[in-house]
Amino acid sequence: MARLIDTNVNGGTGAAAQKPQTRTAAGELEQRLLACRRQTEALIDGLSDADCTVQSMDDASPAKWHLAHSTWFFEEMVLAAYLASYRRFDARYAYLFNSYYENLGPRHPRPRRGLLTRPELADVLAYRWHVDRALQRLLQRLDDGGRQAGAARAAELIELGIQHEQQHQELLLTDLLHLFAQNPLRPVYRDAAWAPHECSAEPEPMHFVPFDEQRVAIGHAGAGFAFDCEGPRHDVLLRPFALADRPVSNREWQHFIDDGGYRSATLWLSDGWQRVCSEGWQAPLYWTQRDDQWLTMTLHGEMPLDLDAPVAHLSYYEADAFARWAGHRLPTEFEWEAAAQRQIASPDEPATVHANGVAGITGHFADSRRYRPEPLRLGGSGPLRQMFGDVWEWTASAFSPYPGFRPAPGAIGEYNGKFMCGQFVLRGGSCATPREHIRPTYRNFFPPHARWQFSGLRLAEDR
Amino acid sequence: MARLIDTNVNGGTGAAAQKPQTRTAAGELEQRLLACRRQTEALIDGLSDADCTVQSMDDASPAKWHLAHSTWFFEEMVLAAYLASYRRFDARYAYLFNSYYENLGPRHPRPRRGLLTRPELADVLAYRWHVDRALQRLLQRLDDGGRQAGAARAAELIELGIQHEQQHQELLLTDLLHLFAQNPLRPVYRDAAWAPHECSAEPEPMHFVPFDEQRVAIGHAGAGFAFDCEGPRHDVLLRPFALADRPVSNREWQHFIDDGGYRSATLWLSDGWQRVCSEGWQAPLYWTQRDDQWLTMTLHGEMPLDLDAPVAHLSYYEADAFARWAGHRLPTEFEWEAAAQRQIASPDEPATVHANGVAGITGHFADSRRYRPEPLRLGGSGPLRQMFGDVWEWTASAFSPYPGFRPAPGAIGEYNGKFMCGQFVLRGGSCATPREHIRPTYRNFFPPHARWQFSGLRLAEDR
Amino acid sequence: MARLIDTNVNGGTGAAAQKPQTRTAAGELEQRLLACRRQTEALIDGLSDADCTVQSMDDASPAKWHLAHSTWFFEEMVLAAYLASYRRFDARYAYLFNSYYENLGPRHPRPRRGLLTRPELADVLAYRWHVDRALQRLLQRLDDGGRQAGAARAAELIELGIQHEQQHQELLLTDLLHLFAQNPLRPVYRDAAWAPHECSAEPEPMHFVPFDEQRVAIGHAGAGFAFDCEGPRHDVLLRPFALADRPVSNREWQHFIDDGGYRSATLWLSDGWQRVCSEGWQAPLYWTQRDDQWLTMTLHGEMPLDLDAPVAHLSYYEADAFARWAGHRLPTEFEWEAAAQRQIASPDEPATVHANGVAGITGHFADSRRYRPEPLRLGGSGPLRQMFGDVWEWTASAFSPYPGFRPAPGAIGEYNGKFMCGQFVLRGGSCATPREHIRPTYRNFFPPHARWQFSGLRLAEDR
Amino acid sequence: MARLIDTNVNGGTGAAAQKPQTRTAAGELEQRLLACRRQTEALIDGLSDADCTVQSMDDASPAKWHLAHSTWFFEEMVLAAYLASYRRFDARYAYLFNSYYENLGPRHPRPRRGLLTRPELADVLAYRWHVDRALQRLLQRLDDGGRQAGAARAAELIELGIQHEQQHQELLLTDLLHLFAQNPLRPVYRDAAWAPHECSAEPEPMHFVPFDEQRVAIGHAGAGFAFDCEGPRHDVLLRPFALADRPVSNREWQHFIDDGGYRSATLWLSDGWQRVCSEGWQAPLYWTQRDDQWLTMTLHGEMPLDLDAPVAHLSYYEADAFARWAGHRLPTEFEWEAAAQRQIASPDEPATVHANGVAGITGHFADSRRYRPEPLRLGGSGPLRQMFGDVWEWTASAFSPYPGFRPAPGAIGEYNGKFMCGQFVLRGGSCATPREHIRPTYRNFFPPHARWQFSGLRLAEDR
Repeated sequence: MARLIDTNVNGGTGAAAQKPQTRTAAGELEQRLLACRRQTEALIDGLSDADCTVQSMDDASPAKWHLAHSTWFFEEMVLAAYLASYRRFDARYAYLFNSYYENLGPRHPRPRRGLLTRPELADVLAYRWHVDRALQRLLQRLDDGGRQAGAARAAELIELGIQHEQQHQELLLTDLLHLFAQNPLRPVYRDAAWAPHECSAEPEPMHFVPFDEQRVAIGHAGAGFAFDCEGPRHDVLLRPFALADRPVSNREWQHFIDDGGYRSATLWLSDGWQRVCSEGWQAPLYWTQRDDQWLTMTLHGEMPLDLDAPVAHLSYYEADAFARWAGHRLPTEFEWEAAAQRQIASPDEPATVHANGVAGITGHFADSRRYRPEPLRLGGSGPLRQMFGDVWEWTASAFSPYPGFRPAPGAIGEYNGKFMCGQFVLRGGSCATPREHIRPTYRNFFPPHARWQFSGLRLAEDR
Repeated sequence: MARLIDTNVNGGTGAAAQKPQTRTAAGELEQRLLACRRQTEALIDGLSDADCTVQSMDDASPAKWHLAHSTWFFEEMVLAAYLASYRRFDARYAYLFNSYYENLGPRHPRPRRGLLTRPELADVLAYRWHVDRALQRLLQRLDDGGRQAGAARAAELIELGIQHEQQHQELLLTDLLHLFAQNPLRPVYRDAAWAPHECSAEPEPMHFVPFDEQRVAIGHAGAGFAFDCEGPRHDVLLRPFALADRPVSNREWQHFIDDGGYRSATLWLSDGWQRVCSEGWQAPLYWTQRDDQWLTMTLHGEMPLDLDAPVAHLSYYEADAFARWAGHRLPTEFEWEAAAQRQIASPDEPATVHANGVAGITGHFADSRRYRPEPLRLGGSGPLRQMFGDVWEWTASAFSPYPGFRPAPGAIGEYNGKFMCGQFVLRGGSCATPREHIRPTYRNFFPPHARWQFSGLRLAEDR
Repeated sequence: MARLIDTNVNGGTGAAAQKPQTRTAAGELEQRLLACRRQTEALIDGLSDADCTVQSMDDASPAKWHLAHSTWFFEEMVLAAYLASYRRFDARYAYLFNSYYENLGPRHPRPRRGLLTRPELADVLAYRWHVDRALQRLLQRLDDGGRQAGAARAAELIELGIQHEQQHQELLLTDLLHLFAQNPLRPVYRDAAWAPHECSAEPEPMHFVPFDEQRVAIGHAGAGFAFDCEGPRHDVLLRPFALADRPVSNREWQHFIDDGGYRSATLWLSDGWQRVCSEGWQAPLYWTQRDDQWLTMTLHGEMPLDLDAPVAHLSYYEADAFARWAGHRLPTEFEWEAAAQRQIASPDEPATVHANGVAGITGHFADSRRYRPEPLRLGGSGPLRQMFGDVWEWTASAFSPYPGFRPAPGAIGEYNGKFMCGQFVLRGGSCATPREHIRPTYRNFFPPHARWQFSGLRLAEDR
Repeated sequence: MARLIDTNVNGGTGAAAQKPQTRTAAGELEQRLLACRRQTEALIDGLSDADCTVQSMDDASPAKWHLAHSTWFFEEMVLAAYLASYRRFDARYAYLFNSYYENLGPRHPRPRRGLLTRPELADVLAYRWHVDRALQRLLQRLDDGGRQAGAARAAELIELGIQHEQQHQELLLTDLLHLFAQNPLRPVYRDAAWAPHECSAEPEPMHFVPFDEQRVAIGHAGAGFAFDCEGPRHDVLLRPFALADRPVSNREWQHFIDDGGYRSATLWLSDGWQRVCSEGWQAPLYWTQRDDQWLTMTLHGEMPLDLDAPVAHLSYYEADAFARWAGHRLPTEFEWEAAAQRQIASPDEPATVHANGVAGITGHFADSRRYRPEPLRLGGSGPLRQMFGDVWEWTASAFSPYPGFRPAPGAIGEYNGKFMCGQFVLRGGSCATPREHIRPTYRNFFPPHARWQFSGLRLAEDR
């Protein structure tokens, strides 16, 4: 990404020499753009228009809305600004599919996204292709054009649009799971085409990996894309601590339940206990007990719990209460990132460098199409296992700006900055995250009561 | 219906002679049943699965739910009890599509009807046909069978199922209108294939038709179907009164608005004024003002108001406030019924006897496929015009049991009786009501804040 | 009242002769006014400023507010209009103590009445005396003045103010009971200075008193005060029915509980069952079970249930469900009134004519200062017992206008008319009603979920 | 505090020598205890029982509750555990006056605190004296007794109880202000006995005081009392920054309003803008505009704004939006504390060492009995002025545990730890804070929507 921009901005004198390189950069971007776009559409394969239209709660959005909004993002942020000849597909979509950008005018209220039976799914797909073709025209010009102002910025924004769409790919899956979980028929999104894991008779105990006191650089810098909230890179002091070698498992969570975890007020944050009582929490979201067996709703239908797999669909409150019950605590996002950096720097097994330029990330991601967390044998490497993929890991860190953070001017500045209040940071990605989307510096965030993501936890402790 | 029942119950000795007549009765019932069933399905012609799945508010239901629930009604009330060989289409539907019958076990919560993207529309249609075939088998047996116990009751319940489905035909339309009205794209359900009415330059003034003091029999008796709440027939004393010759028009409602009707607390019932304030009412539901012109959302899309047509989509509160503003009052349901009886007894124009056995009912109903109230020239007859069709007319009567009313035992008894609290009676049917469904004794009821039906008003006064 | 008015309006020429009579009328009114005013103040004897200030729910008001509002009523309705020299005690009270009169301008919101720690109780008492003195001056003028315009109207309004204040005397007691019932300390308002009733070993069975089919005149007419909603008097047709000789007792209510009445959905109106579930009703308001014994909170503290006494603190929903469970029904208000008229016309025991001019009313009222319903031996006469006093009796009648009803113009017209929606009529008065306040035609009304009044039921049935 | 503890714990062998010192320590504690207790009672001087009983919102508590709860704290935390002979004043108070300590059993629900008209204020005062006498007995024993186990802990807990009560002194004032602000009569709590400040014609411009990059120790350590959440003391890295020399003034806030600050969505955090819209915020809490002049409700009644004084009664959202509008940001709590430390280390004017052992704190506190923020001339010293007193200053820091923080076991551990979620830190104390209560390390915290405290802001910026 940075290379592409540099090329466009600085290039020019040696046009003949530069041209091929420029073409390569824009061409590569186009390739990644189209791959991303097609991947989103592949996610709704086999779903009905109705499946893609209904909204199961205010926090979730219909699949159709994700399809349209990620397209709207390109239309508003890129095409409207950088492709003079662009004609909108439907002027009314600017209102319908704006999510929360105050800079871009009024919008259809979030809780009413599920009332839009029109445009139909077919219309939304046509909208996608209309925008795709325009983006291709724009990329062609970036390729051709020497010095036009804004070319670099347009390419940056297309990259942002890809990253944005990847986020919505994950949300599309988690929102769909939430929708299907409301249905007593327990619909299956994707058949489980693989042999089920047999729970181990003797589960592996949890180990803690120690880290010394250190001054560590946190946040993104250098090449490769990152969201604004991942920077500026800055130093942080860490006390000695230790991090569990793996996430907490469903088996361990059952012990918490059996020990009365959901009935012991003193384990909980005050706000958390209120939720437990007012919403009657007795287990993670999607768990139901039938004939003394715990089942969990997944995108592959309702299935018995895999006791060796990481527990998922936890609120921050639950993760925090478990840690207290276990005599440990949650790690801060700085501890987590420091550990992840060390892990990547010395992997136990060879890891490929992905397109984002970050080497060493291994794990179980959405690319596998097995949309549920899996036991140890399937992911992770090094002394710390499953740092990436399977489940997002709640950290003890509130989502706050890094020192020196300033959001970009205009609409893009609303992307992350205005949510820096009332949310906690999660790290590492999940089985619903596209593999290319994750980074050690990646900061996901949700309010502490949110449970419908693939959110789990890893324990930490002071040393 | 009554004839059919009599035949089945009393007939028997002269089987040879009776057979043809019986076959005629059951055959006629089958014919009416299938016509009703096909009519329901015709209503969703051109709608997507998504259109049929979404629920726009707690009070409304998805079209797919109406299709399924009216089928469930036959399955539970008729087939489960009277067709021993019957096998349910899907045992889980008993839970999914029960509306409110406590006698029939737990049910999917009403506000969550719109979360059921599965079963798909195609599944629901298959369910309908499964039940239809079983009903035909049952009717065949009624035809064949001389004296089998319950035959008459089964036929009665099939008739009830038809009437029930007709109610849901109307609700399907009004719920769909509500859904489409939430959509900024203002979808069109059916094209308006006729020339628009040109508003009259000199609208016809309203006249009041006087009625003397009288003792009048109210409620249903004799042949023909009626709901339990329409009886027992009983005498009521009426003081001298007068009834407007037509419903209040959109033009007159504009005067109410222009005169500050929605800003004058003293015109309103206390509960009504609270609604005006808390929900910001400034006009009937579906009215919006654009460039000084009032538009209204209809099943034919958003259209300019037809000033000569009856005003619709009013709450009881609005109807009552208007009457007070106008120096009049709403009629009681007894006054309305007494007037309707006289009207029918001496029609100005020849009227056909419809299948329900009630002569003299003319008006603009759903059968016209023009789903909006129309000006005078299109409906009504006699000194009182538009008594039937166009708009339901709010009466001043709370929905209370008639003297001697006792609901039937079992689930059927829940049909009307348990709603006799907090509701007001509306009379006369609307442009969304099937013509055959209406009767002079018909008591529709809604809570006083409900606005999404085609509900209007007719003024009355003491004499 | 009527006599007084006639005297003032028609009298005049023969002043000498008239004077004594006039003085008697105005003097009698003054005497009754002051007795009523002092009685209200006696009710707060022993209460703290805090007791009189707190509001325990939106539907209830603080005692201090009742003291002030009943005074405000005289100030606004009488003094401001009919005593030119009147100076308001505090101009801001017009806003603070208006209850719901839209004609009289904006007002302090009802749910915020309990936030007014100022004016203090002493200020409110000073306000009362200020208004009393002004009313006395006005009455003096009525006495003196021959023909002044409005004298009769002023006297009428003072009478209305007395009746209004009597209503608030009852509400002050029921609101205070509600407040004290929220307090875990279970405060005692008045010591129970009498020997407790010993529950009968063999309770008296319930009998039904038959009434023939009849045409009966309903509503108030003639001499004596009545609220506008009690008229116009009009004829009503009644079918043959029977009325229980006494209200349902606590013992009978226990049977209902023990038989699962609060767990049987099919006994309940749809709205009622929703309340049972959402609010967890398991017994009447104020009942609590401790060590297998039912206790009930009263104005004399928490006490064991008196099994022979009428059950109280029921919603309409509960009364209706009980009647259905018992195989009976609630009477209409017309049936109740017809029965009450017959009862009064032929009492079993001599009854005094009370100041309202209605003879034959016996029963247990607030004047006894025993503020809880009592068993049979203490009230009632004739074949129907306890028709008056002890508990208000829910009727099956929605609170609707009588034929020909028109509210008075101006603020007074808001007194009852604007509540004719969503409420049910109760009849007969309670142990918290001033004896002089009740009449056979008296229509009390509350929404069907209200439970904090002394509301019980009497069964009826068709004959 | 630490000295006292050391004395008790370590002392013993040389009783004769130790005794006086011990007595001094315990005696000094007793003196401070009683001064604190009397000070709380002085706050309700002139208030009625009603004033002290009503609860104006769920977040606030009645004065009477503060009086009782701070007493309950001593009873439960100290007397029940350390004074064997102690007899509770009323066993039911354990339930009534527990605030949120799950370890100490069930409690009266917070939103219902205002329903307790009993116990009366006089009872609560008797309760206070009962507990005071017992505490004095206990302190006497601490004085006398050499080595009894727990003596040091008891003294620690008494100190905690004093600090706890000081917190409730401030809350009593802010809750009372909220209550009086709901009253249209605008009651005056304390007369303003001083000459009003005349707003300066030329207000002093705001200056920014620079701070270099540094590694700074944050948090409490050493002698003197501090809450658990103020430690452990730990090093933090700070980038270069600058801090405004004074809080934002009312005048500056007016500019924000006049510039459309409350109407500009893009200035606000997402959650903040939702509040602005849903609650209609147009100015800080307690501001009202009358005849083009802004007034503000204070404990001295409604007064014109003092334009030169710090703005107060802001939510975090407002403080944050203002900073964005001004092109600055809020400081972190670490920046604030580092600045305060430097300030104290080199004061411009001599400052007394207060009992807490912290020198250099000057400012306008509750001890002045002028309960509103004041302009510069009245407070502050050094290049940074008004760091302490006048208004609490919102920081950008979420209220999170310091590295190594572990709450104490048992009920005391619930004091702060379970609120470390969804809250922001405020620093510096206000005009309603007792002077002795504040420290540079003091961390106050409230949720971001809270506005009823004396909460303002000081701007910061990156350097």
